[in-house]
Amino acid sequence: MTHVAYPCLTERILASFERQNAMHLIRATMPVVQPGLTEIHVPHWDGIEQQHGFVHGGVVGMIADTAGGYAAMTVAPEHASVLSVEYKLNLLAPADGEKLIARGRVIKPGRTLVVSQAEVFAVKEGRETLCALMQQTIMIMHGKVEK
Amino acid sequence: MTHVAYPCLTERILASFERQNAMHLIRATMPVVQPGLTEIHVPHWDGIEQQHGFVHGGVVGMIADTAGGYAAMTVAPEHASVLSVEYKLNLLAPADGEKLIARGRVIKPGRTLVVSQAEVFAVKEGRETLCALMQQTIMIMHGKVEK
Amino acid sequence: MTHVAYPCLTERILASFERQNAMHLIRATMPVVQPGLTEIHVPHWDGIEQQHGFVHGGVVGMIADTAGGYAAMTVAPEHASVLSVEYKLNLLAPADGEKLIARGRVIKPGRTLVVSQAEVFAVKEGRETLCALMQQTIMIMHGKVEK
Amino acid sequence: MTHVAYPCLTERILASFERQNAMHLIRATMPVVQPGLTEIHVPHWDGIEQQHGFVHGGVVGMIADTAGGYAAMTVAPEHASVLSVEYKLNLLAPADGEKLIARGRVIKPGRTLVVSQAEVFAVKEGRETLCALMQQTIMIMHGKVEK
Repeated sequence: MTHVAYPCLTERILASFERQNAMHLIRATMPVVQPGLTEIHVPHWDGIEQQHGFVHGGVVGMIADTAGGYAAMTVAPEHASVLSVEYKLNLLAPADGEKLIARGRVIKPGRTLVVSQAEVFAVKEGRETLCALMQQTIMIMHGKVEK
Repeated sequence: MTHVAYPCLTERILASFERQNAMHLIRATMPVVQPGLTEIHVPHWDGIEQQHGFVHGGVVGMIADTAGGYAAMTVAPEHASVLSVEYKLNLLAPADGEKLIARGRVIKPGRTLVVSQAEVFAVKEGRETLCALMQQTIMIMHGKVEK
Repeated sequence: MTHVAYPCLTERILASFERQNAMHLIRATMPVVQPGLTEIHVPHWDGIEQQHGFVHGGVVGMIADTAGGYAAMTVAPEHASVLSVEYKLNLLAPADGEKLIARGRVIKPGRTLVVSQAEVFAVKEGRETLCALMQQTIMIMHGKVEK
Repeated sequence: MTHVAYPCLTERILASFERQNAMHLIRATMPVVQPGLTEIHVPHWDGIEQQHGFVHGGVVGMIADTAGGYAAMTVAPEHASVLSVEYKLNLLAPADGEKLIARGRVIKPGRTLVVSQAEVFAVKEGRETLCALMQQTIMIMHGKVEK
């Protein structure tokens, strides 16, 4: 396992996540932040459903995008922030379960661009089903630290 | 302009939208439904922001995906529903403004698959800025009508 | 219409295209280079076919990617080259016709990244059919001029 | 390891590949066909280069698309063929080496749609470098067998 890029990396990423109102709105948390890897969890609750009672595909996309973006931030230098350039998401199965877990990981770090991937799993009675796969490009903004 | 595929198309699409809790959660409305075309609007409010005070990219993706999906539903036959297979979104500018407008339109209708596109604009002091572009594949589920 | 970014832009882009052996291999030409816009043409010949006698989807992707990339180069500064970061291509119809035309255009210019789009048309008896749609991210490499 | 879906699967896939002129044009071969998995190899030769002497990104895309498509065909039923609906490719590093290997694999099989992934590696002095990552949607055409 690689080590963290600089002290307080995890704290800085968690503090950034905390400032994202939209993550609070959907009741998302980020219990895992490791070098090159993050996890975002969302409980299934009625406010984030689509018309069939599954979690809305847009919410699946939100946590995939965010998990991949923070995974990229774990490999960025200290005085930098990250920006989502684009992502592509395949929805593989209905998001049916008690909660969703988005696992973001870095595929290719780089000075200016980082390519990340995220898998989103629906957890039902303890069993994980892959319900979405995302491939993403993140830009490193050097010298632009989040306040 | 082409005409509607069957009577009550608009009503059926609006009723489906109404059942999407996640759209209510972010305060989205769908004031435009036309053959091959929809519009979803979201006011800028603090609950949907990211850490810099702009609307969260995930929310931008949610309304782009939904606008493109319902555009596809306008060209689907009566006894069918639609399913988002995949989408790819480029974030072009910060979603900075009083409200967002996602315009979905059908690029290529088909019996099983429909390809849609959506543009998301941020409206600031009456001026629209393109802030995201999405390309999407939608599947027609024949014989699966939404209740 | 915007004007060219610097003198000899068209010549430099055509010279770059000429050095792409893979474009010669498939018999592609680039008859149109304008600010924000290019066109690549490929005659239908048996060497570029897939198993059903249509032009191979991979060749469709090649000319879409290249057309979008050179469109981006028309908006890049003089002392820079361009690099394809990623693209997403929907294949909409079989590439059936006497020739293919890929039209690349810039959607969003930028200092570091440019977002382009390309449409590929199959021309059959003078009629154009849209057979592919591509959305792409291009990186500007400042200070890296092609020799 | 899963077993093959029906007898002569490998033979049928290889025969289909053989009929793709565009694969011959770039000198591609498909030495590996297994359930859910294929490999396409291309030697580096000057005809497939771009202007910097690396293998053209479009050729990288061609073999990624084809490897993912045939991986999907390994999980399709006997009386069916496959069609590439769309793919998204990130170019991660220059395709620099003696040969390229595209490894396609099925992520999610399905009756109508299959989601595949492909990684493309450049092999230089025996060392593989990941140079592209692709995510793809394939459609199963039931009752449409290739002749």
